[in-house]
Amino acid sequence: MDDHHEMWSKLGMNLENHDALLEVLPPLYGDIFLGQEGRPAGMAYFDSFFGEIHGARIRELVEHREAGGFVVGSFCTYVPEELVLAAGGICVSLCAGADFATDEVEKDLPANLCSLIKSAYGFKIGGVCPYIEASDLVVGETTCDGKKKYYEILGKQVPMYVMELPQMKGPRDRVLWRGEVEAFARRLEEMGERRITEESLRKAMGTVNAKRRALQRLSSLRASDPPVISGRDALLISQIAFLDDTARFTSNLETLCDELEQRVAAGETVGTPAHPRVMLSGCPMAIPNWKVPQIIETSGATIVAEEMCTGERYFRDLTDEKAGTLDAMLDAVADRYLQIDCAVFTPNAERCENILQMVRDRQVDGVVYYALKYCDPFTIEAGSVRSELEGAGVPMLYLETDYSEGDAGQLSTRV
Amino acid sequence: MDDHHEMWSKLGMNLENHDALLEVLPPLYGDIFLGQEGRPAGMAYFDSFFGEIHGARIRELVEHREAGGFVVGSFCTYVPEELVLAAGGICVSLCAGADFATDEVEKDLPANLCSLIKSAYGFKIGGVCPYIEASDLVVGETTCDGKKKYYEILGKQVPMYVMELPQMKGPRDRVLWRGEVEAFARRLEEMGERRITEESLRKAMGTVNAKRRALQRLSSLRASDPPVISGRDALLISQIAFLDDTARFTSNLETLCDELEQRVAAGETVGTPAHPRVMLSGCPMAIPNWKVPQIIETSGATIVAEEMCTGERYFRDLTDEKAGTLDAMLDAVADRYLQIDCAVFTPNAERCENILQMVRDRQVDGVVYYALKYCDPFTIEAGSVRSELEGAGVPMLYLETDYSEGDAGQLSTRV
Repeated sequence: MDDHHEMWSKLGMNLENHDALLEVLPPLYGDIFLGQEGRPAGMAYFDSFFGEIHGARIRELVEHREAGGFVVGSFCTYVPEELVLAAGGICVSLCAGADFATDEVEKDLPANLCSLIKSAYGFKIGGVCPYIEASDLVVGETTCDGKKKYYEILGKQVPMYVMELPQMKGPRDRVLWRGEVEAFARRLEEMGERRITEESLRKAMGTVNAKRRALQRLSSLRASDPPVISGRDALLISQIAFLDDTARFTSNLETLCDELEQRVAAGETVGTPAHPRVMLSGCPMAIPNWKVPQIIETSGATIVAEEMCTGERYFRDLTDEKAGTLDAMLDAVADRYLQIDCAVFTPNAERCENILQMVRDRQVDGVVYYALKYCDPFTIEAGSVRSELEGAGVPMLYLETDYSEGDAGQLSTRV
Repeated sequence: MDDHHEMWSKLGMNLENHDALLEVLPPLYGDIFLGQEGRPAGMAYFDSFFGEIHGARIRELVEHREAGGFVVGSFCTYVPEELVLAAGGICVSLCAGADFATDEVEKDLPANLCSLIKSAYGFKIGGVCPYIEASDLVVGETTCDGKKKYYEILGKQVPMYVMELPQMKGPRDRVLWRGEVEAFARRLEEMGERRITEESLRKAMGTVNAKRRALQRLSSLRASDPPVISGRDALLISQIAFLDDTARFTSNLETLCDELEQRVAAGETVGTPAHPRVMLSGCPMAIPNWKVPQIIETSGATIVAEEMCTGERYFRDLTDEKAGTLDAMLDAVADRYLQIDCAVFTPNAERCENILQMVRDRQVDGVVYYALKYCDPFTIEAGSVRSELEGAGVPMLYLETDYSEGDAGQLSTRV
């Protein structure tokens, strides 16, 4: 591993805090990922990406900026990454997934706020997220109350742009959102000092759709019984999808999928048919928030799907590539992102429909509903999801938790 | 007091629960309101309204329905009451403000949800809110995540209509909101089986503006030093403004204001100049949520303003009555409601500006920021409000609480 301290220092990071973080992550990763039996060889690429997640990948971002490009950091699947690519930028998601600098965080944010938001702020004020330090613009969205109001605080510390996501999906909302997509495109053009053209947007749409198709392919391969890849590995791949170079990621994921197809044919699997097939549903899991998957898969079950933003919600829908004009392409982008079925929408019946569909497609024995404490949209919507699942005869275990490890024993018992 | 049991029974209420509630309220009211020294005579009207808050006032709603009218129940200052009046309806706010049936509530809603929402649901499933039982339609709004998702659950039990409030105040939001106002008007016309006309809307706008002007007059009278009315009484009046017949309320409030003017002239006051002048700021306080005002005013301070929905936020802005056409009137209604500075908006700088203006106008010595636990918009925005107030040399006390009485001693000590 190259020494990246000079780069981190130039980015304005807190080296002492960051070194401490880097000491904790590899052993945690080793315990959860590297010790798995019968792991596909193609996971080596993702292991190596993780090994340089704050190093070589950040260097690429820095070099991209030095070459005249720009970097956009985001927190959410609603930020249209095609537009960022088309304008000459790189889109990455920002750090969260572990508690950091909590005492400092709680000076500015309420203690009773979801871990994801507190964590994101902790990584920023602790100076340990190279992705935010390497970003020219941080793009937020008005999904939930917590993030919406948090961005006002974050906006005092970084260049911030907030997209307004509507709360329903009617014709008036489509008009609002289409306007937001266009305004975001204009903002990116200013940053990139170039126009988004039909050509550049078509290319970007193809690149991002290819990533989604590769993720869909992986997702379909998990329908095999017993599964050919662990839920932890599949989650890791989804998490890396938000950070890696899009084309390189896609290529490596396709290679892995080729291997997995061979494993299916050869009957090489992880787990046994006796292992219950579990679907995770609910809030996103950012790196290194692997607590619940680790508990589930070391309790004798295998996770075969993630109905979450770090999962199916990120890649279920493609952007329609048939559009002929720039306007029609922006329509397609707006439509694609407005299909995402986050619990912040009301009503949100399509989420339950999608969940039932996934349960059938993947032969799911039970759903673990993962809710971050204090997340009103996902905690409240759990009731509708439970009703639908019970109606379909599928049991649901509701886990409300945060990023602390204090409840691991209790969660383990419940699982 | 007439016996209203037959009416309550016909409304489908739970008489046993409701009788228990009615035993608790009068002594609480007596302790907090009736024992105050030097109380204005004009408060007698509001005391008598409170005495029949679940009785005579509900009978009026029932009679209005029997005569072919309809009743709309709401939870929020964003629901345009002019439109309800213009369509031949009565607009009332629904019960909240005390914990009820909490065990039952927490089967459908997360425990970590703001008291206001849990309370509203408790009143519904406990069968103790005659206002919701007498409503032909319950109108919600997409203000905060908690209410937005709660309305999905409530909508399974009552006829529900949700208005989409945008989250920003730009031109695209104005278009969305104007469309929502128009759609709501159409829905009301269906209910009332009559068109909203220029004439009926002009009259309704005048009626509601008159109420706001009377509340503004009361608010201005509280600038006197020492104050001529207690904060508890002023809050009670604001709370009753959401329930009473608009014209009768206005007339009685004007009478009270006449008396208060005479008291100012005669030097009759509540409190003494030595009492600190406190402003309440933050979340709404629904009847009978008088815990914090009672603690403040029995600790030697006087409340001289409420920067909350049960207060200034409800009546600060008038609807422009100059509009000549129905379309222009609907524009005026949309514009008026979009001015409200609830913390759900981002950014929301005008709230800080309004707070500073109120501090100056009322010669406020200190602000008590009242946040309901788990209310992300108001808890997070507290930081900006504190910065602005500290910059102006005004101390702010942050109280985060719920509807339990368990923390009364601790709050009292902090106040």
